[in-house]
Amino acid sequence: MIKKIKEFINERDWEQFHDPKNLAISLNLEASEVLELFQWTKNNDIDSTKSYQLPDELADVYYWLLLLADYYKIDLDQALKSKLSKNKQKYPIDKSKGKSDKYSDL
Amino acid sequence: MIKKIKEFINERDWEQFHDPKNLAISLNLEASEVLELFQWTKNNDIDSTKSYQLPDELADVYYWLLLLADYYKIDLDQALKSKLSKNKQKYPIDKSKGKSDKYSDL
Amino acid sequence: MIKKIKEFINERDWEQFHDPKNLAISLNLEASEVLELFQWTKNNDIDSTKSYQLPDELADVYYWLLLLADYYKIDLDQALKSKLSKNKQKYPIDKSKGKSDKYSDL
Amino acid sequence: MIKKIKEFINERDWEQFHDPKNLAISLNLEASEVLELFQWTKNNDIDSTKSYQLPDELADVYYWLLLLADYYKIDLDQALKSKLSKNKQKYPIDKSKGKSDKYSDL
Repeated sequence: MIKKIKEFINERDWEQFHDPKNLAISLNLEASEVLELFQWTKNNDIDSTKSYQLPDELADVYYWLLLLADYYKIDLDQALKSKLSKNKQKYPIDKSKGKSDKYSDL
Repeated sequence: MIKKIKEFINERDWEQFHDPKNLAISLNLEASEVLELFQWTKNNDIDSTKSYQLPDELADVYYWLLLLADYYKIDLDQALKSKLSKNKQKYPIDKSKGKSDKYSDL
Repeated sequence: MIKKIKEFINERDWEQFHDPKNLAISLNLEASEVLELFQWTKNNDIDSTKSYQLPDELADVYYWLLLLADYYKIDLDQALKSKLSKNKQKYPIDKSKGKSDKYSDL
Repeated sequence: MIKKIKEFINERDWEQFHDPKNLAISLNLEASEVLELFQWTKNNDIDSTKSYQLPDELADVYYWLLLLADYYKIDLDQALKSKLSKNKQKYPIDKSKGKSDKYSDL
């Protein structure tokens, strides 16, 4: 995917705007647009008239996430595996089962 | 990856907390932690003493993104391909080259 | 309040970090910390064990909001009065009563 | 100001949507719209063609901040004074002068 993204960017000569601080800002703005779909929901789910927008909004988050990872040469799958291992330590099953507490409060 | 994530969650009986509104909130909170690494940077890059934290923070964004996509049965790669196609229409090369303007201002 | 804030900042020689882009980032990070207090709530209210943190978190949002307004010489009360007037036009009572729709969907 | 805001809301029968979790989400979405004005700026300042939007965007943040404070009966000025006192302790002038480090790193 990152190849397709970079081709899209290079054709438009947009790399000049993509310092990593701007990438991180863009990631936040797109995450915000995902959240906006849930703004006034009552049952915690997206209103059905808006759910068609979700794939595009998630794609936008993914786009900036891949660009940030690429900028810093981070393998996302590897990073997630490593984070899950850490979280298994921070949240031992016997202490955290069924609780939403932060590890520091367990 | 989503299998590993769900195994981690199921072992802890955490699915009860994961209504999609909470997933979207969590996505935003983790995107925010990525941005925090850039808060006082002067050259728009992460301070070298903090960059070791970035893989974990990006992994956290990826985690919630995958869970949201899974909840709504969205294929992220497919969604991104489709969004890139739309963006190619919205940002024709001849009009958008070298400009950071939004498509509505082109 | 802005006088007290600026005295606090000047004593620490921190104005050098406060370009408006960083102020806007900080505003977002603190808004995020407010949201974090609601992350896993079930009844949409803050858990009572965390509510003591709210005044500090709201104060942090207010702090950056005042600094941004001061930077651009914006009078917040005046800006809010003006925005309310616009919203009264965008959301006429007869069309918007009891509905959470965006003005563009009314 | 809060009186004017509540009158505006009550006329539209919107209080039913304003559980505090939704208020916190809205605060974040509006903070995000402030940040969006800085998305592609190169000199860390808002592009002059967009700066006319800033008073409205800051007003929107202020609106939700006042509603959240009102919901929890928090006096924002008082909360900010109290937070500044705490920050004076956390950031003693001699240790923090000219540094953007977090108090935990001083």
